[in-house]
Amino acid sequence: MRPALPLLLVATLAAPVLTAQRPPRPTPLQQQYLPVANQLIDAALADSAAWHRIAEMGDRFGPRFSGTPNLEQAIDWIMAEMRRDGLDNVRGEPVMVPRWVRGEESAELLLPRWSKLPMLGLGGSIGTPPGGIIADVLVVSSFADLEARAAQARGKIVLFDVPFTSYGQTVQYRTQGAIAAARAGAVASMIRSVGPFGMQTPDTGGMAYDSTVTRIPHFAITMEDAMMLHRMQDRGQPIRVRVQMAAQTLPDVESRNVMGEIRGREFPDEVIVMGGHIDSWDVGTGATDDGGGVVVAWEAIRLMKKLGLQPRRTIRVVGWTNEENGLRGGNAYRDRHRAELGNHILAIESDGGVFAPTGFGFTGSDAARAIVQQVAGLMGRIGPIAIGPSGGGADIGPIMAEGVPGMGHQVDGTRYFWYHHTNADTVDKLDPLEVARNVAAMAVMAYVIAEMPERLPRS
Amino acid sequence: MRPALPLLLVATLAAPVLTAQRPPRPTPLQQQYLPVANQLIDAALADSAAWHRIAEMGDRFGPRFSGTPNLEQAIDWIMAEMRRDGLDNVRGEPVMVPRWVRGEESAELLLPRWSKLPMLGLGGSIGTPPGGIIADVLVVSSFADLEARAAQARGKIVLFDVPFTSYGQTVQYRTQGAIAAARAGAVASMIRSVGPFGMQTPDTGGMAYDSTVTRIPHFAITMEDAMMLHRMQDRGQPIRVRVQMAAQTLPDVESRNVMGEIRGREFPDEVIVMGGHIDSWDVGTGATDDGGGVVVAWEAIRLMKKLGLQPRRTIRVVGWTNEENGLRGGNAYRDRHRAELGNHILAIESDGGVFAPTGFGFTGSDAARAIVQQVAGLMGRIGPIAIGPSGGGADIGPIMAEGVPGMGHQVDGTRYFWYHHTNADTVDKLDPLEVARNVAAMAVMAYVIAEMPERLPRS
Repeated sequence: MRPALPLLLVATLAAPVLTAQRPPRPTPLQQQYLPVANQLIDAALADSAAWHRIAEMGDRFGPRFSGTPNLEQAIDWIMAEMRRDGLDNVRGEPVMVPRWVRGEESAELLLPRWSKLPMLGLGGSIGTPPGGIIADVLVVSSFADLEARAAQARGKIVLFDVPFTSYGQTVQYRTQGAIAAARAGAVASMIRSVGPFGMQTPDTGGMAYDSTVTRIPHFAITMEDAMMLHRMQDRGQPIRVRVQMAAQTLPDVESRNVMGEIRGREFPDEVIVMGGHIDSWDVGTGATDDGGGVVVAWEAIRLMKKLGLQPRRTIRVVGWTNEENGLRGGNAYRDRHRAELGNHILAIESDGGVFAPTGFGFTGSDAARAIVQQVAGLMGRIGPIAIGPSGGGADIGPIMAEGVPGMGHQVDGTRYFWYHHTNADTVDKLDPLEVARNVAAMAVMAYVIAEMPERLPRS
Repeated sequence: MRPALPLLLVATLAAPVLTAQRPPRPTPLQQQYLPVANQLIDAALADSAAWHRIAEMGDRFGPRFSGTPNLEQAIDWIMAEMRRDGLDNVRGEPVMVPRWVRGEESAELLLPRWSKLPMLGLGGSIGTPPGGIIADVLVVSSFADLEARAAQARGKIVLFDVPFTSYGQTVQYRTQGAIAAARAGAVASMIRSVGPFGMQTPDTGGMAYDSTVTRIPHFAITMEDAMMLHRMQDRGQPIRVRVQMAAQTLPDVESRNVMGEIRGREFPDEVIVMGGHIDSWDVGTGATDDGGGVVVAWEAIRLMKKLGLQPRRTIRVVGWTNEENGLRGGNAYRDRHRAELGNHILAIESDGGVFAPTGFGFTGSDAARAIVQQVAGLMGRIGPIAIGPSGGGADIGPIMAEGVPGMGHQVDGTRYFWYHHTNADTVDKLDPLEVARNVAAMAVMAYVIAEMPERLPRS
């Protein structure tokens, strides 16, 4: 395609109807910060340091599930590395987190033929009795389908075989499925893993109980097996499954929100906070969810330090703990820093994987939006970076509710839910150059907002 | 797209500069067989019967590994279904096949941190001693790399971490790795799973030993874990693995080549043979490798029967047994039918998955090539169907070596090695319409070659 480009460009410039596509003239803010933006982008794209940091964290500590030593060792390692990077105020702020323990678990198809069913118990589920549960299966396609066939559900294991549409829609069967199935008299419930594609990879994630109905074990099987069981039911075959889960919820334990900063040279008490969650589920190594989010924010300020760039305001990078099964880290951050929230200029969360960057969703004033749009315009070199109509993240939700402007880092989401909460969430699914482009985007956005003379206006 | 087609056609006919792209004028053969080709294509595209047949076989019997009751039950089911379809001479021809039994197996990383390593023993491997093998790991990138570091391999488990290039190149580490590692004094060997993509899905497949060196256990780990171990070695970390495998080779057992026919109305002794292999590895359900190949050939003649089409010559559909770990089915077919091979007009194998069809590789005389190219020209409705410079298949290799013209059914191979020999080789990876297009391609090719007055010329 390359040889054709100059011709196309000539055609574009020559055609008055197309002038709307010509890049707008740089604003004064853009003229002022373009050199430093380029410096940050150059540094971010110079090597694969961020990718290697995600890899090393995953390789050294494995999954970082709340309540596990792995998570706390990873946090210790981050603090040691942040200090080696020369960051300021490196610390861990204590947070009590839930401790759900999966234990041994397995499922197998007994009828119409024996087969192992790869599975994952869902976070927060109770276990089965020690001998497991053996029951016939009723496959349903939706909550409405279950209601219509409620008379057939009693004493059975209900399978919600719901094809993925959007995460928000489909995840309801994970969060609410055990309640609906128990209400219909089921003895356990299982879901088709939540995602558009799988390779016999079950996924896990949070789920809820309701005090008005019995708690029953709730687990995910693979999309392949869910579809197979559905076909078996359609053929009129009897389906029987045995499931055994030793899951239990133990008393809360202490974890930490981990953080490091570049202190502001002029307004150190004014803070741009950014990061992701450092905990993961207890599968894979949480590379896309959300080790990458923490690392790209961290790398962004490491590069500033390395380049000798100290902005007017403080940039604080946080790895919040326990996003996955409690959101305790985000809430604890709000409580501990409540007195400073008036001086929290902007909160940026990266929790959608660090695939090819596409922009930032922004929730804040129109005046602030006009500024962050100009900052996005400094990033043309790493791709078209757009500012979406709203944005935020689970961990910054609590401080956004207190009035802090929020921003959600956005990336190409094509494959995110292929790996999400599965054993396949590992660093090889990330491209080093795409990760570096995300570092650049986070660095430019945070630096300019921290450096510009005026505060980002709240209203 | 459909409403646009007539317009496009008009434009093409009207534009003299585009005449090079105009389809060539139909040959007499094409004029003669276009109506029946369209009839077969219409029937194939009318429903998803073939996809459902692949699904049902996989769901009912699971993997169909040589030496297992699953395979023999699937063969019994095929014969019963073929008889219900009204096919002629439905039968199973006995073949003695090897019986390698995987048994319990597992691997775990002990250093630098504990982790389960999903794995599959490779077909034909010996097992470990009952307590397993615990040893440090040497990661190498190639056979040459192993030779260069042979001094470090003694007493270790060698890991071949070789990125996928082509199957032919990369599979060498699966087939020859145990020999090379044993020669360097390793106590076991493991490979990175052979494929361009995985989701913590190890793959299996055949492997060889050599009488000049010790037999050592040989197994595959996932691409993710192979890369991780490589990174750990690059960081200078000690790597220790424990592997336990109960694999053993038992005495041969009887299996069958399964087949059914449409007997020729004029030259019943002249045979077009086509199909795939009915056995699979002992993982997944062998939907792409190669249940789909058998089913599309079978569906092709079922549709002829349904449409009341009986060609001049016999079309015989065969599900060869034991392609995967012995090729006994293809050899037994040659031996049993040796006297008839002079009357084998054409052999067609489908063993590349039944993704979007792209054509047929053909090995035969120029005169025959000119004919099969005309037949391919009848299939424009299902996509551009090309005749490649050579083709065949493992199962028809033995009869091709005796002079039978051979043809390999070709499809889009983008994802074939994602699923190949893994638990993810299940019917949901196939698209019902693509499967139906393959049925159409097989049906048209076989029917016209079986129907045309003259034999396909051998030379």
